[in-house]
This record gives sequence, C-alpha cells and structure tokens, in this order.
Amino acid sequence: MLTRPDVAVVGAGPVGLAIAWRCAQRGLRVVVHDPAPGSGASHVAAGMLSPVAEAYFGEHELTGLLADSAARWPAFAAELTEAAGTDVGYRTDGTLVVGLTADDLAEARRLWSYQQGLGLPITPLRPSALRDREPALAPRVRGGAVAPGDHQVDPRRLVAALRAAAERAGAVLRPAPVDRLSDVDARFSVVAAGCGAAALTGLPVWPVKGQVLRLRATGGGAPGFRHVIRGYADGESIYLVPRDSGEVVVGATVEERTDTEVTAGAVLRLLRAAVDLVPELAEYDLVEASAGLRPGTPDNAPIIGPLPGRPGVLVATGHHRHGIVLTPVTADLVTELIVTGEPDPLLAPFTPDRFVPEEEPRWN
Amino acid sequence: MLTRPDVAVVGAGPVGLAIAWRCAQRGLRVVVHDPAPGSGASHVAAGMLSPVAEAYFGEHELTGLLADSAARWPAFAAELTEAAGTDVGYRTDGTLVVGLTADDLAEARRLWSYQQGLGLPITPLRPSALRDREPALAPRVRGGAVAPGDHQVDPRRLVAALRAAAERAGAVLRPAPVDRLSDVDARFSVVAAGCGAAALTGLPVWPVKGQVLRLRATGGGAPGFRHVIRGYADGESIYLVPRDSGEVVVGATVEERTDTEVTAGAVLRLLRAAVDLVPELAEYDLVEASAGLRPGTPDNAPIIGPLPGRPGVLVATGHHRHGIVLTPVTADLVTELIVTGEPDPLLAPFTPDRFVPEEEPRWN
Repeated sequence: MLTRPDVAVVGAGPVGLAIAWRCAQRGLRVVVHDPAPGSGASHVAAGMLSPVAEAYFGEHELTGLLADSAARWPAFAAELTEAAGTDVGYRTDGTLVVGLTADDLAEARRLWSYQQGLGLPITPLRPSALRDREPALAPRVRGGAVAPGDHQVDPRRLVAALRAAAERAGAVLRPAPVDRLSDVDARFSVVAAGCGAAALTGLPVWPVKGQVLRLRATGGGAPGFRHVIRGYADGESIYLVPRDSGEVVVGATVEERTDTEVTAGAVLRLLRAAVDLVPELAEYDLVEASAGLRPGTPDNAPIIGPLPGRPGVLVATGHHRHGIVLTPVTADLVTELIVTGEPDPLLAPFTPDRFVPEEEPRWN
Repeated sequence: MLTRPDVAVVGAGPVGLAIAWRCAQRGLRVVVHDPAPGSGASHVAAGMLSPVAEAYFGEHELTGLLADSAARWPAFAAELTEAAGTDVGYRTDGTLVVGLTADDLAEARRLWSYQQGLGLPITPLRPSALRDREPALAPRVRGGAVAPGDHQVDPRRLVAALRAAAERAGAVLRPAPVDRLSDVDARFSVVAAGCGAAALTGLPVWPVKGQVLRLRATGGGAPGFRHVIRGYADGESIYLVPRDSGEVVVGATVEERTDTEVTAGAVLRLLRAAVDLVPELAEYDLVEASAGLRPGTPDNAPIIGPLPGRPGVLVATGHHRHGIVLTPVTADLVTELIVTGEPDPLLAPFTPDRFVPEEEPRWN
C-alpha cells in the first residue's frame, strides 16, 4: 500500500477488526496497527451475547445499545462466516439465570424482575421446568429464569474470522505498536485499543481485571449442558458458557487491578460456584486459567465517536464487559460516521465529549 | 565413552541420577538413559522428607527405611550441594500436622498417636502454641502437632544438582528412550524408570496419579509461613510446602489413574483445603497446576535389588509417594550391591523377588 490510507485502526481486537472489515467493504483503504492481534480482553472473554441478562439498574442507554447490537448479531455472524470462510461458534441455545440458595434466587429475581419490567424477554421457570431444560443443574439449585434471546459466540474464533474477512476485503495488518497518534498517517484514525486508548487519547479508560477458567469435558465430547448458565451461588456471581468443542468457559471476576496474574482465591471462588451449580464440572479437565483487562469507563458505557479537538480521530473503546456483543453496532456506526460524516443518533449517549474536561476545570 | 559401561541406569529421575552419581564416585563407568531427565514424578513432587508424618499403620518396614534415608539427608544434601555447586532447597524448619475441624483433628491425632507409639519424634501442641509457631494458620484450626525432624527439599533443584554432580563425576547422559533391556549393553543395568519399569521388567508397578498446585506469594517475597503444613480440612488431606523463592506447593491427590490431566474437582478440593488452613493463600498467584504419575506397588513399598532370572539387572523403582526421601538410601544400597555383590540386610523386605510369580501359579 503506497498511497495514504483512508482509515488507520489502532488495535486488532474484535472492535478494531470489525471496523476495518466494514470500512474495507466500503472501498476504503484500511490499515490496522497491532503488534499482537486478538491478545487483549477478547482473548479471555467468554463471548456471551446477553442484552437481557446484562440489563442493569440505571443503565437504560447502554441496555438499548446492547439490544440493538444483539439484534444485529445473527446477520453479522452469517455474513462474517461467509466472508471469512471460518465458523465463529455462534450459538442460539439461550441463557438460564439461576440461584443456588434462597438468597441467591432472591438476588437473581430482583434483577430479572427489573428486566421484565423493561419488557425484555426473560421468563421465570419452575424448578422442575428448569431441570427439564438442563438436567446437569445441581438438584439444590432453587430456581431460575430463561432468556431465550441471549446467545453466545466464541471470541477467539471471532477474532480469527474478523481478521480473515478484513484482509480478504483489502485491509492490511501492521504488526507494530502505535505509541502516539501523530505517528499514524491516514485520513481517519480510529482508536480501538482497549485499555491502551487512555494513553493515546487522554480519555478515562482504565483496566478492569477479569479472571476466567477454561474447562474441557473429558473424552472429547460436548459439555453436558447446552444453555449459557448465569448463576448466583452462595453470593458468588458466575457464568458457564458451553461450546461444541467440549470447552466450558467459567467467569469472571471483576477487579480494579492492572495485573494479569491468576490468583488462588479467584480460581477457588469460580470453581466452587461452578461445581455447586453444575456438579459434573468437577470431572472436567482444567485446561486454562487466565486473566485479561477490560477497558472500563466512569459510567460503564463505551466511548464511541469523534475525539474533540482532534479532527480525523475517532474512538471506539471502553466496552468494558460488553465488547463482544457490541462489536457489530460499533463497527456499523463508526463506519457510517467515516463514510457519511454524520453521527447516528444512537451514538449520542456514548460520544467521547461527555468526558472531555471543560476549558476551566470545574474545581478551580 | 568407547568402552563398555560398567553401569547403565535407565531413568534420570532423582533415584536414577543419584545411583549414577554414587557409582561414578566409585570409579565405575556410568551411562544414564532418559529422553527427558527429571520429567517424571519428581517434576511434580513436593519434596517432603517426612519419615515421621509418613509413618502409616501396618507399614513398619517402610517406616524403618524412610527413617534410615531421612537420617542420610543432611549429609547427602551437603555433599550434593558441594559436588554440584548448586543449592537444592534443603530446609529443616519442621512439619506441622493440623486438623481444621474436631473430626479432622481426631483423624490427625489417631495417626500421630500411632507414630508416638513407635517412638517417633512428633509432639502435640496446644492451639495457642500452634499459632505461636505459625500465625498464618486460620484461627479455626482446632489443633495439631509438630514433627521437627520432618524436613523438605526442592525436587526440581534436586534433579538439576544430581545431574550436574553425576556428570561432573563422569557419568554420561544419553537422551534416548530404552524400549527393551536387551538394548542396553553394560555389566550392570539399573532400572530406575518409575512407572516405566513395568514394561521393562514385568514387575507390578503402576501409575498413581497425583495432582499438585504451585502458588506464589505476590510481590516476590517469601511465603508467610515456614513449616511444612500437613493438614486435614473437612475430610481432605493436603500438604503445603513453602519455599524461600515464594513458591508454595499444594498437594496432592492420590488417584489410580494413568492420565496426567488436571481436573477442576481436584483443583477445587486442593485450593479449598489450602485456603481454609492458611487464609493468606487466597491472595497468592496460582502459577502451575500439574499432574504426575507415581510408581505404585501392591504393598506400597519400593522394589530395590536384583531382578530374578536376569543376571546383571537391578531394579530401583516403586517408590510411590516416597521417591525423594528414599533417594539417598536407594542410591547407597544399589551402589553397594553393584560394588560388593552383597545386598545390605536393609534391602531384604524390598527386593523384587517378593513379586516374582511361582513356577506354578497358585490359582492352578
């Protein structure tokens, strides 16, 4: 590529690669800068596409964006699978939300009642109906609900497919780090660098550590359950994501830490809750314990849009625990912004200008 | 080495390497065959030198051998450290045996009362004395005892030092596997191949799987406790071995299995018991989870001595959970047998002929 690129994306995680793919599809010349594509938060992510079960109190605007992006996922997955020629592990078996003890069930019910109040598709199940759906659940699980529209994808396969699709569409990967935005020469620069966005833009993005386990069913078979299971177990909140390969992802801690060490206490809490909810997991192999850093923001919402005072610079970061589900909508909106110059109204609550300090800091 | 070796050792674990070192010290020409030295049971072993706390009901002869070998350890460690020029992590801080609940304490006491009855050095401690010795113990630990003569060594360092000492003394390592004893050309062959001894000799040696964790104190410091801790916690029997490096070995399961997978249930049981006994371990990094195969035998005792019907072939295997503590005595006795042709009376209960089938099997 000898001519100046139209778009330089900094960061080859799912968000950066999806933007690169979408832009390249529109005929733009795209480069993606990353010394280690797919090695950030997505490498550890479970890949739940949970607009309903992730709808939290006081986060209406984020809940709307999650639902919008989740609705894009079926077509996105189909188009990507076709474009890349590789499977992304997209599964639509739905999600069960369960509580182990009476207290756990009360905690779960408090949230799903809120979600029902928003009109979201989540339905309480009697214990017998719960066990009919998922006999692998422990007999002592007190109850739960089903969110049939909360699906899953395999983030590692997603990154591989997005990379292939972006490259097939003409995007070029450059395996070098970007230390300063001024080092990037393109009509548009898109900062999709996860936690690295803070140093590049000055925006308030910080690491939120998550520890995750990967188990594998013995004998090479599939796990003994099909649904994503989000459970509360003796006060611990975890999820279990079964894959066709036999893998079960167990996550995740949420810690305001910047290291990526795996700690004994976190592994203990995750395993205890997992085995309490689905006893057969005790027999599974423990094949990986890892930690990643999600890009967190002050209001738990992503930062997507033009960087004030820096013409031609756009930002797509701060996706926190929602990077995988928000990949399609982020890529579509950023691409539209680049192509048309007009921000979609959906972006309004998430633009970077909500964090830019006033000329005179308020505390003066 | 162009001339025929005097001794060919099959297996470069601690036992094989110590035999090679001792024989080379006596002027014998020694080769050691192993495609992956130190990769067997010793790689996973914790390195407890516990003749007292490992003295079990009905194992008098083994208990005597453990005590004999443990008594050789101080001089063995000193000589080896000098000969190899590297440290082996030999520590003499002693061992605490503790029980978490009243039931656990009763279980522990049943065994240490037996050990006291044999005249072995183990002394019950009042809870306050226990906590004075090791403040890192959980307040709910009900009681325990101290075995001041039960020490530890680092098996990985031990293997490295034995290899260096053996090579310095003239032994030659050959990194190739031995499939048949007839492929080995030497005056004496010594089968020290752990579980691999079964295929080479027909002796009843089988794998006993052990799963072990390695934690590390954060910040690079030493662990917050000095003693080896052998604990019973809600019916689970575990040990915690602290090293100067900050490492704490947590072990171990005992499973009649031949695979070396790490299972979720085993990690959960080990971590739960470890954190229940020493709460600060929850903050430690989990740096390794691994499994090894100990060479077990029908009577839980090692097999050391001449292989009947195979002149010139000796065996040193079946050390089960005691390979590290029994390394010095095994090496000394095998070397004496090779040099003098006379078996030490100590060997009598452990020679291979106790397993060789009679001419007419008994069930005919």
